[in-house]
Amino acid sequence: MPIPEALTALEKILGDRLSRSKSDLALHGRNETYFPALPPDAVAYPETTREVAEIVRVCAAEGVPLVGWGAGTSLEGHALAAHGGVTVDFSRMNRVLSVHPEDMDVVVQPGLTREELNRELRATGLFFPVDPGANASLGGMASTRASGTTAVRYGTMRDNVLGLEVVLADGRVIRTGTRARKSAAGYDLTGLFVGAEGTLGLITELTLKLQGQPEAVSAAICAFDAIGPAVETVIQTIQMGIPMARIEFVDGATAAAFNAYAGADMPEQPHLMVEFHGSDTGVAEQAENFGMLVAENGGKGFQWSARPEERNALWTLRHNAYYACLGLRPGATALVTDLCVPISRLAEAVEETRADIARATIPGPILGHVGDGNFHAILLVEPGNAAELDEAKALSHRMVERALHLGGTVTGEHGIGMGKLGYMEAEHGAAWDVMGQIKHALDPQGLMNPGKLVRQG
Amino acid sequence: MPIPEALTALEKILGDRLSRSKSDLALHGRNETYFPALPPDAVAYPETTREVAEIVRVCAAEGVPLVGWGAGTSLEGHALAAHGGVTVDFSRMNRVLSVHPEDMDVVVQPGLTREELNRELRATGLFFPVDPGANASLGGMASTRASGTTAVRYGTMRDNVLGLEVVLADGRVIRTGTRARKSAAGYDLTGLFVGAEGTLGLITELTLKLQGQPEAVSAAICAFDAIGPAVETVIQTIQMGIPMARIEFVDGATAAAFNAYAGADMPEQPHLMVEFHGSDTGVAEQAENFGMLVAENGGKGFQWSARPEERNALWTLRHNAYYACLGLRPGATALVTDLCVPISRLAEAVEETRADIARATIPGPILGHVGDGNFHAILLVEPGNAAELDEAKALSHRMVERALHLGGTVTGEHGIGMGKLGYMEAEHGAAWDVMGQIKHALDPQGLMNPGKLVRQG
Repeated sequence: MPIPEALTALEKILGDRLSRSKSDLALHGRNETYFPALPPDAVAYPETTREVAEIVRVCAAEGVPLVGWGAGTSLEGHALAAHGGVTVDFSRMNRVLSVHPEDMDVVVQPGLTREELNRELRATGLFFPVDPGANASLGGMASTRASGTTAVRYGTMRDNVLGLEVVLADGRVIRTGTRARKSAAGYDLTGLFVGAEGTLGLITELTLKLQGQPEAVSAAICAFDAIGPAVETVIQTIQMGIPMARIEFVDGATAAAFNAYAGADMPEQPHLMVEFHGSDTGVAEQAENFGMLVAENGGKGFQWSARPEERNALWTLRHNAYYACLGLRPGATALVTDLCVPISRLAEAVEETRADIARATIPGPILGHVGDGNFHAILLVEPGNAAELDEAKALSHRMVERALHLGGTVTGEHGIGMGKLGYMEAEHGAAWDVMGQIKHALDPQGLMNPGKLVRQG
Repeated sequence: MPIPEALTALEKILGDRLSRSKSDLALHGRNETYFPALPPDAVAYPETTREVAEIVRVCAAEGVPLVGWGAGTSLEGHALAAHGGVTVDFSRMNRVLSVHPEDMDVVVQPGLTREELNRELRATGLFFPVDPGANASLGGMASTRASGTTAVRYGTMRDNVLGLEVVLADGRVIRTGTRARKSAAGYDLTGLFVGAEGTLGLITELTLKLQGQPEAVSAAICAFDAIGPAVETVIQTIQMGIPMARIEFVDGATAAAFNAYAGADMPEQPHLMVEFHGSDTGVAEQAENFGMLVAENGGKGFQWSARPEERNALWTLRHNAYYACLGLRPGATALVTDLCVPISRLAEAVEETRADIARATIPGPILGHVGDGNFHAILLVEPGNAAELDEAKALSHRMVERALHLGGTVTGEHGIGMGKLGYMEAEHGAAWDVMGQIKHALDPQGLMNPGKLVRQG
C-alpha cells in the first residue's frame, strides 16, 4: 500500500489541513442511513483549486483513491471511502465568489451550502431554488444531481448548473460551460459531471442559475381519503398547466410522524402540500384552479396561506420529514429509497408500495415529490437487526423492480452511491457499459470515488 | 479505399435504399449556407434501428465514415461528408411511435420534422415547443442541440429530450434515459448525445417532453430608436420575472428585409417581437407589465394581438427572416453566425457587432433570441467572391472573439459543424481535450461524422 508515502507528501502540501485523527476519519466514514462505516485513511481540507489539483496529482502518482465530501447528507453512501484513501473535505472552500444580479447567476465554491448561499443572496431579491431538504453543499448537490421539492417548477441540479470547474483524475483543471444561458459548442460536459457522483473528477467551482424572489407565494395542505385521488389531483394540475412551485405527497404514516414529532394536527391520511409562486393575481388564480381540482377529487381541510410564518411552518414540517419518520421508532435507523416513474403510473407505484409495506413487519412511511413522479419510502429498521435490514432491502428491491416495470428509473434524486449499483445494469443495459467507457477514458486508474456508479472489478 | 466493398455489403442489406445516384449525392453534399459541396460516396435510407446498426457495423468493419442526415437545415455544415463515406438519411424513419398525453411525452423517430410532429399532436392539446425556425428533423435538432425563439420559455433540446436510442460506432444499440421526468441513476448520457453532432453515434429514437397548448396567447411588435433601449427592455422583463414565451430582436436592416420580402410596413429601426403564453388573466397581466417597460424605454408602435392570424403573420415573418435577408441581395449566399453572451453584456455585443458590420462593404442584418443573450448576423456575400467571403469570415471571427471576451460562447444554437471548429480550443481549453477523450473512447476509429467537433488529426 503506497498510502503512507502519499500522506507524507500531502502533509507537506497541507500541513495540519491533512487530518488523520480518529474522530475525523470516523466522521468522514459515516453516513445518514444504514450503510456500515467506511472511513478514509486521511481527510484533506484544501483551500484552493490549486491545492485540490496537487492532492489529486499526489494520489494519482501513488494510486490512492479520492472521495469528495461536502456536507455528508447524501442518502446512498456516496461519500463513503469504500476503498479507503483520501477524503477531500470542501468545507474550507465555501465562499460565494461573485454574484451577477443582472444575469441572475452566481459563482460559488463547492463547500458552500444551499442555505448559506440563500442567506448571502437575500438582499439581491434572488434565490437559488433547488431544495433537497437537507442543507447540503452545492458541490455535493451537483455531484448527486440533487433535486427535491421545487424541481417541479425550477428543475434539478441538471437544469440549474451553468458551468463548473473540475479537477480531473490526472490533476488537470478544466472549465465547462460559460455564463451564457445556452451553448451549442460541443459536448455538454457540465451535464456529464453533474450527477457523476465524483467518479470523473472533483468539482471545485460552480456557476449556478438564480431565480427572482416571487412577488407572491401561497401554500396549502389538504387531506384525501386515499392515495388515488391525491395523485389524480396532481396529474390534473399538471395537465391544466397550473405552474406549481412545489407539490408534495405524504401518506398517513408520515402525517402521524408529523403529529408526534412536531405537534402537527393532521388526520392520519394521505395529504398534498403545495406552493405557488408568481404575481398576486397569478397566485390567486392558480390557488383557485387548484382548489377546484382538490374539491373534485374529494380533498378536505383545504386552506390557503400567504403568510410567511405559516408557510415556513409547513415546509419546516416537510423538511424534517426524515427525522420525524425516524422518531416513529425511537433508536431506529432507516433504509431510505426513492424511485421515479412516469406520472401516469404514479398512483399504481405508490399504492403497490404502500400495500407491500403494509404486509411487512417494519414501518415505512411514504412521501415524495409527486409532481415529478418521484417518491420515497423511509424503511425503519432496528440497528444491528439483520432480519429487519433484509426485509427493508427486499421491500426496496421490489420498489426498484416496480419502477423499472412501470417505465421509470431506480432513483429520481438520491443517486446510486453504495445502495443501487446492483440495479444499473437492469436500468441501463449496454448504456451502463458506455458509462464505464467514459469513466475509464477519464480515470483509467479508477481512483475517483471507487466502488460507485460504474461496473466494478 | 475499402469503400467499394462496404457499399457492396450495404447494397445487400438495403437494396435500392442504398443510393449512389449523382443527384442524391449532390443533394446530400450541399448545405444551407456558404460551405462548398462535400458529397458522400453513398446515401443509405434505413427503415429500422436494426438496419442502422447493420449499416454502422459494415462501415466500422471497412473503416468507412458515417454522417447522419435529417432535413439538411443546419447552418454550420454539420451534415456534410467532410471525409466522404456513407450519409445515413433518416427520412424513412419519420414516424410518431407513441404519444402519452397523461405524461405529456412522445416517442418519435429521428427523421420526423418538428412541424410534422406538431401537426400529429394537434388533437391532443399538446405541442412540442422547440422552434429553430427551419422545419428541421427532430434527430437533427437533438444532434445540434437546437433551440430558437421559444427557448427563453421552454428551454433548448437539452431540456426537452427525455431519452434516446442511439446506435454507437461499433453497432451496439443503447437506450439512454426513461420516460420518468428526472433520474439520478448514473451519467447523463442523454445530455451527452444531445449536441454531439453525430460524432458519438446515430440517434434512432427520441423521447420528447411536450407542453400543454396555452389557454391564451398574445403577441406584439414594437420599435425602438436604438439597440440599447430594446435590449434594456429585455433585461428588465427577465428581471421582473415576466414569463415570455418568445422575445426576439431584429435590427433595422432586418426590418427593411421584412418590408421588401413580405410587404411588412415596419420602420427601419430595431424592433422587439414578443409572445406570452398562459391563462387569459396571466397573459393580460404580462402584456400590461411588458407594455410599461416598453414605454419607459421609449418603445413605439406597441400593439397587442391575441388573434391567431395576426400572430401567425408575425412569426411567419420571423421564421422567414433568413430568406428575407437573403433577398436583400439577390443571388447572394450567407455566412450565418450566432453567439450567446450573458444578458448583461448583450447590448454591448450587439452594438459593437452592428458598428463593425456598418464599416464593412457587405450587408449583415442582425437578429436573435435576445431573451437568452443569443443573436445572429446574416452576412451576405456574392457566391464565388473570395474577398467578400473573407470579409464575412473576418466579421464572424470578431463576433466570436467578442463573445468569448464578454464571457459567452462561440455559438448559442447553430453548433460547431465545419464553421467553428477553430474556436473550440479558445472556448474550452483543456475541456476540449476531454471531449476528444470521450470521442476516442466511444469511436476509436473516428468514423462518426469525422471532421467535426473534436480536435482533428
